[in-house]
Amino acid sequence: MAEVVISIQVDRDGSLPVYRQIVSEIHNMLRNNKLQSGDRLPSMRDLANQLGVNRNTVALAYAELESKGLVQSRVGSGTFVGRFPGSLEESPPGPASDLAGSLERALSRRGRQGDDLIERISVRDEVSRINLSGSIPDCELFPAGEFGEVLSQVVADMGPAVLDYGSKEGYGPLRSWIASRLRSQGGIIDESELFILNGSQQGLDLASKLLLDDGDCVVIESPTYYNAIGVFRMYGVELIPVGMDGEGIRPDQLKEILSRRRVKLVYCMPTFQNPTGITMSRERRHEILAITARHGVPVLEDHFDAELRYEGQAEAPLKGFPGSDHVLHLGTFSKILFPGLRLGWLALPEVYQEPFRRIRACTDLSAGLLAQVAIHRFCEEGRLDSHLELVKRENKARLAVMLDEMEKQFPDGCTWTRPKGGMSLWVSMPRGVDAVEAWLDARRAGVNFAPGALFHVDGGGSNMFKLSFTREGKDRIAEGIKTLGAILRDRMQESKGVEQSSTNVLL
Amino acid sequence: MAEVVISIQVDRDGSLPVYRQIVSEIHNMLRNNKLQSGDRLPSMRDLANQLGVNRNTVALAYAELESKGLVQSRVGSGTFVGRFPGSLEESPPGPASDLAGSLERALSRRGRQGDDLIERISVRDEVSRINLSGSIPDCELFPAGEFGEVLSQVVADMGPAVLDYGSKEGYGPLRSWIASRLRSQGGIIDESELFILNGSQQGLDLASKLLLDDGDCVVIESPTYYNAIGVFRMYGVELIPVGMDGEGIRPDQLKEILSRRRVKLVYCMPTFQNPTGITMSRERRHEILAITARHGVPVLEDHFDAELRYEGQAEAPLKGFPGSDHVLHLGTFSKILFPGLRLGWLALPEVYQEPFRRIRACTDLSAGLLAQVAIHRFCEEGRLDSHLELVKRENKARLAVMLDEMEKQFPDGCTWTRPKGGMSLWVSMPRGVDAVEAWLDARRAGVNFAPGALFHVDGGGSNMFKLSFTREGKDRIAEGIKTLGAILRDRMQESKGVEQSSTNVLL
Repeated sequence: MAEVVISIQVDRDGSLPVYRQIVSEIHNMLRNNKLQSGDRLPSMRDLANQLGVNRNTVALAYAELESKGLVQSRVGSGTFVGRFPGSLEESPPGPASDLAGSLERALSRRGRQGDDLIERISVRDEVSRINLSGSIPDCELFPAGEFGEVLSQVVADMGPAVLDYGSKEGYGPLRSWIASRLRSQGGIIDESELFILNGSQQGLDLASKLLLDDGDCVVIESPTYYNAIGVFRMYGVELIPVGMDGEGIRPDQLKEILSRRRVKLVYCMPTFQNPTGITMSRERRHEILAITARHGVPVLEDHFDAELRYEGQAEAPLKGFPGSDHVLHLGTFSKILFPGLRLGWLALPEVYQEPFRRIRACTDLSAGLLAQVAIHRFCEEGRLDSHLELVKRENKARLAVMLDEMEKQFPDGCTWTRPKGGMSLWVSMPRGVDAVEAWLDARRAGVNFAPGALFHVDGGGSNMFKLSFTREGKDRIAEGIKTLGAILRDRMQESKGVEQSSTNVLL
Repeated sequence: MAEVVISIQVDRDGSLPVYRQIVSEIHNMLRNNKLQSGDRLPSMRDLANQLGVNRNTVALAYAELESKGLVQSRVGSGTFVGRFPGSLEESPPGPASDLAGSLERALSRRGRQGDDLIERISVRDEVSRINLSGSIPDCELFPAGEFGEVLSQVVADMGPAVLDYGSKEGYGPLRSWIASRLRSQGGIIDESELFILNGSQQGLDLASKLLLDDGDCVVIESPTYYNAIGVFRMYGVELIPVGMDGEGIRPDQLKEILSRRRVKLVYCMPTFQNPTGITMSRERRHEILAITARHGVPVLEDHFDAELRYEGQAEAPLKGFPGSDHVLHLGTFSKILFPGLRLGWLALPEVYQEPFRRIRACTDLSAGLLAQVAIHRFCEEGRLDSHLELVKRENKARLAVMLDEMEKQFPDGCTWTRPKGGMSLWVSMPRGVDAVEAWLDARRAGVNFAPGALFHVDGGGSNMFKLSFTREGKDRIAEGIKTLGAILRDRMQESKGVEQSSTNVLL
């Protein structure tokens, strides 16, 4: 299939944005049969050079053409006219398509800081039968009836005031409840430090607004949560990935970077990290705090799923260790209760509180009051604890099934983490085996997982992927792993010349 | 009262932020009786020069000292040790303190783009008996019982799924309902253009993220919503105020500016503008659309209270006129239903939709699903319309009482707008009469309103203020206006040498 010549022109001063002009021209060529099914479009780089435009502009145009089902890109091969079966199905709403969205498009603001994921991975999401992708709870387990009762009670008890504006800080009793819960886990957090958010994603956004400027440096764990990469990029910061080992982010690398670069923030997930499931050891926590304190760099601790422990002893949050005054602590109800309420929290050292209030007032005023009051009542009545007991029992069983099945189905040469809690684990295949190719195969078979490239900013992770065990039930997990095992065996067979060895690197 | 000398030193490289060091040093001077009640602190400018720090840093320090009740600033006189009676009462949560917050502090991100409001107006909010300040609905009128029933039904009917993650775009049936409602008002809006937000304040934030960069120019109406000023400043843009007349923003000024400057956005509230209550005439709408279209400048139409019409014929939204492809349309449920649900919407031209999805995913994923589903059910069952009928009847009566009472109580020389709907009206006093002084008097008497300086970026509005008539009942409105009338008479008596004349300018 030869590459076709696209002889179009764009008008940079035209009323239509350039990328829309490209879409429209290519669309015309299709209609006029100047392009036919199977034709390969020029690479984004070539077309960008030819037209004298930014590569991201072409990427945006190709993404749009693909979203219309007119072209299809294949990893490593290029973008082709026509499409694969099934690729035109509508995206479902919700996190499944969020993930696909970030796979497919530049993660960053207006595409200006787009990375090469947009070129590497470009397939529309479809409804996956088995979702092992996102770190999302299983809504089948939600005690909706109970929560409905709580809602009714709360509205009856509090009347219209519960539907009025809330404060920027959040509902006092809920802040107080969260503070005391965190203290019971070894945190040192006062309710005056807590701000209630629309979910913890908003904490990443607001902390960025508070702390970061264009061009600043932020240290992230590598791999890390892909929507954290997205939000930091949106603020135009330079991301510096620091590797992990079995005890968390590596202190040697961190120390080296902080001594060399002026870093504005270190972002980490000390407990059941996303995507790896790794928990930072106690000693490592001390070390990381000491290093960052010495350099005066604030740490954003993302505690999103720390309550989901299925075995072993809980570690206190960073924000509970001595010398943790410089830690901002982020948490959420979305992983332990209901993501549809959009409630999280951010604990801020005093120095940030006043500026944060100003920022919040100009961003969206406050979190929803009714949701806060209802979730407070629900928690205070002990219903969260009963629910968590069920969820943890169930998740533990699901994780066990996943690990068992992986042991049976996954080919030699694959290794993976064995988390003691959380929502996901991390798989490494031998170098040279492409997780995106496996992902394409898996999705055709109705199984979704998250390729490793998503979680990296340095081009790493191509032979790695994340599996989440919290959204699907045990049977579907087993089925999904079986399907996936067969795909991985095929892929590894195919990747000729790859020598399996014990030097296979986990992270 | 002589100005005292503050002989302190700050360490710019210290671990404590400079403004905290200033707070701490002054606090120490107080403890050691080096400062005494009644002493006047150096002006912010002087202390900033003396210490070699930014004036905003000193402003932040003084604001903090004031919030602790240790000092008190008096407009035009300076900052004094000690305080006035009543100034230490705790701020109530909610919009009342939002307003005080923005009066008192720099509106902008980390105080870096602070204007002189922080120096001009610095009094802590207290609980006002009569709130004529914010454009907020009266929660006493909320049909909480009815909404409680709807919540129960929705949870019962939809089960756990209603507590799951929602989509970035928002709940489909709600988007569809909003689109059709706007169409019934003459809007041309398709549900595919609509994104559900956490209140319309978030629309200002997200539109800024989408469209604006540091240093860009944005045209605003003058006066305009103070938290719009805040959000635009947070994004580091230059604000260009354009005057208004009785038909809305002035086309001659707008045309002149757009031909001279590269403007990235025009922000306006065509119907029942905040703070003036003015509605843009049909002819003016055509004109504004034509001017902005000619210059290719997008318009952000804030439709926040347009449904609250008490007399006369409704005007179609801008986004319903021919040639309105460049209009972004912003709306909210907070003024017609329940602000505590935090639900608004933004309709975006197609070109912005894809980048907006990316931004939303990285900002806070989505609006809360339960709230969306419940409000949709509530509206679809016709309950919004019944509620609106009540609210409009009541607001109309409140506005009439306010206008009647103003006619009786306000001194000659004051003029005001007479809106046909919305939530507020705008008062002009003769030049030289200071609305902030009147505001201080009024608050001591338990009445709150919003001084005009808040709504201006150019130092204007000092003799103007906003009165809102939707939060309080008729009796309290009458009482508030009576109190205010007496204060205004005193103030105008005092402002010696001010010649009342018919040349008094409304806006």
